[in-house]
Amino acid sequence: MVVSKYLQMAVDAAKKGQATWTNPQVGAVIVKDQQVLAVGYHHQFGHRHAEIDALAQLADISQAKGATMYVTLEPCSHYGKTPPCAKRLTEVGITRVVIGLLDPNPLVSGKGVAILKAHGIQVEVLGESLGLNVAYRFFYQHQRPLVTLKYAMSLDGKINSAQKERTLLTQPAAQQDVQQLRHRQQVILVGEHTLSIDNPRLTVRTNPMVFPPIRAALVWHIDDVDRQSYLFDQSAPTWFFSATASSTKLPPNIQVFVNPHWTPKTMVQKLADEGVQSLLVEGGSHLQADFIAAELVDDLVIYVAPIVLGGTGLPAVIGQPLTARTGFEKPTVSMLGSDIRIQTRRV
Amino acid sequence: MVVSKYLQMAVDAAKKGQATWTNPQVGAVIVKDQQVLAVGYHHQFGHRHAEIDALAQLADISQAKGATMYVTLEPCSHYGKTPPCAKRLTEVGITRVVIGLLDPNPLVSGKGVAILKAHGIQVEVLGESLGLNVAYRFFYQHQRPLVTLKYAMSLDGKINSAQKERTLLTQPAAQQDVQQLRHRQQVILVGEHTLSIDNPRLTVRTNPMVFPPIRAALVWHIDDVDRQSYLFDQSAPTWFFSATASSTKLPPNIQVFVNPHWTPKTMVQKLADEGVQSLLVEGGSHLQADFIAAELVDDLVIYVAPIVLGGTGLPAVIGQPLTARTGFEKPTVSMLGSDIRIQTRRV
Repeated sequence: MVVSKYLQMAVDAAKKGQATWTNPQVGAVIVKDQQVLAVGYHHQFGHRHAEIDALAQLADISQAKGATMYVTLEPCSHYGKTPPCAKRLTEVGITRVVIGLLDPNPLVSGKGVAILKAHGIQVEVLGESLGLNVAYRFFYQHQRPLVTLKYAMSLDGKINSAQKERTLLTQPAAQQDVQQLRHRQQVILVGEHTLSIDNPRLTVRTNPMVFPPIRAALVWHIDDVDRQSYLFDQSAPTWFFSATASSTKLPPNIQVFVNPHWTPKTMVQKLADEGVQSLLVEGGSHLQADFIAAELVDDLVIYVAPIVLGGTGLPAVIGQPLTARTGFEKPTVSMLGSDIRIQTRRV
Repeated sequence: MVVSKYLQMAVDAAKKGQATWTNPQVGAVIVKDQQVLAVGYHHQFGHRHAEIDALAQLADISQAKGATMYVTLEPCSHYGKTPPCAKRLTEVGITRVVIGLLDPNPLVSGKGVAILKAHGIQVEVLGESLGLNVAYRFFYQHQRPLVTLKYAMSLDGKINSAQKERTLLTQPAAQQDVQQLRHRQQVILVGEHTLSIDNPRLTVRTNPMVFPPIRAALVWHIDDVDRQSYLFDQSAPTWFFSATASSTKLPPNIQVFVNPHWTPKTMVQKLADEGVQSLLVEGGSHLQADFIAAELVDDLVIYVAPIVLGGTGLPAVIGQPLTARTGFEKPTVSMLGSDIRIQTRRV
């Protein structure tokens, strides 16, 4: 579809919001007499919403009278960290609101529009996501986080040259791409074997983040995890899915969720309960097989390095058998240096 | 480099030779007074060479007097199935010969040129392969066939959903591409497991071939191989690498090479002794691991289908460990329908 230039401006503004955490990216543009009076967006989780940010850009709030607001997502109707935006728009005299998409949260969807209409504001809803907030929309549609599985493998489908060692397969361009992928995630999960062999940082090192992804690991006994692991440092919150509770007091950024039988399904449910909208699973082979078997892989990002690791290399996915054959869409393939990047979504 | 238009015509003609078997593709163009008088090529194994074919296109053989011949490969100097071409060129009065590449066979390389020069013919050698005869040149450089390993795998590096079943992964476009790949090979090899599970035809079904690739299989005991397997049909010669000899008389298109300890190295040596210049290894997982471990994979062609086969799928390569880490060149990647085609060459 063709989106009006004003709404496109709102989309562009929305994308500037890089620390919105579990809030959606939203942009808003105020127009009167075909003049753009203000552009706003949601900058950061806990800060003002896009509509209020746009109003704040006006030279004088009286300019809002009789103006049209283009906003990528339905104005909110509830008192949260900020008062409801829909109500504020009625107060300042906006007479027309063009909305990209209704809020996908079924509990509030349509309520912002209802407030606007009840106050005589003319409302148009396009029903277009405008490419924004993929995980946010998925979360409210499926009541669980969007799960992305990511691994780097050799041409023969191996992730390590042997069970007990770490093999660096990809080159800097692919490693950089992983950082970008992490940047868009709320939680990054690894298995215990990967934790002990790789001792991963699971941080985004390219862009310092106000709300870095929560690092998570599935372990048998939290007490057995090496306290020198990077996951215990202060660089981000860390959540452990453990079969047993910790017998010692842990730093405040560490949380332990206890269940003697964690599965992908129960872990994903727990994350959903915590409001997590996106999960990146980063290995190892067994955890990957578990998520595939549970049919809980929505997106796949695979880096293929131009080497072979041979007959005793560790396969990218091993262990749990499939429950059903899972097809993926025609992949998007690109080169990152000499490495191949494959991305696809479950059919 | 810039190749003269006459030599380029010779290259284009050479490529028409589709049944040259172990002979190289060769093309020849006869030019006098900037007029192309004749274009010839080697059509088929056992038929006349390109130079003679070009001469045969002349309206009258006396036209060759004082003419220049452009030929992609050095004219031969030895009596084989046909008399030496170099000698024939001297007889018909050709006065200048422009040659793409000296014959890479060290036993004859330069001898054709020597004959020409001894008869006062002006000779220019460009030292350019012109993209022709990759396997032929490899064979004489390395004294063994060029080995291509080909497999289709899932996004998680598996070739079958389980050990004992065949899983068709790719779509028709990739399957068609495999036919093209086979078309360029002299021998196609599979392991015993693949032979028994897949019962492959190993034939080129898209273009009927005068000299189809020889089908080959590595087996323990030829006597144990199911006589109903397609490899026993008459559609192409079949060679078995077996630890034991056959106790029964086999059809004339079947040969059995006996060695109690066949390895990739000894098989490739045997093929070299038989004059085979190109070998396509088509699985299964263990044979592929053996060839990788033996550092006998020169080219890799991999088809990746957009499905996952999960934790109990059969890895594309399994068994024998690497002896040395093998790197490959930056791959050439293309899409065939929804399947990804990856091609690369050993560094």
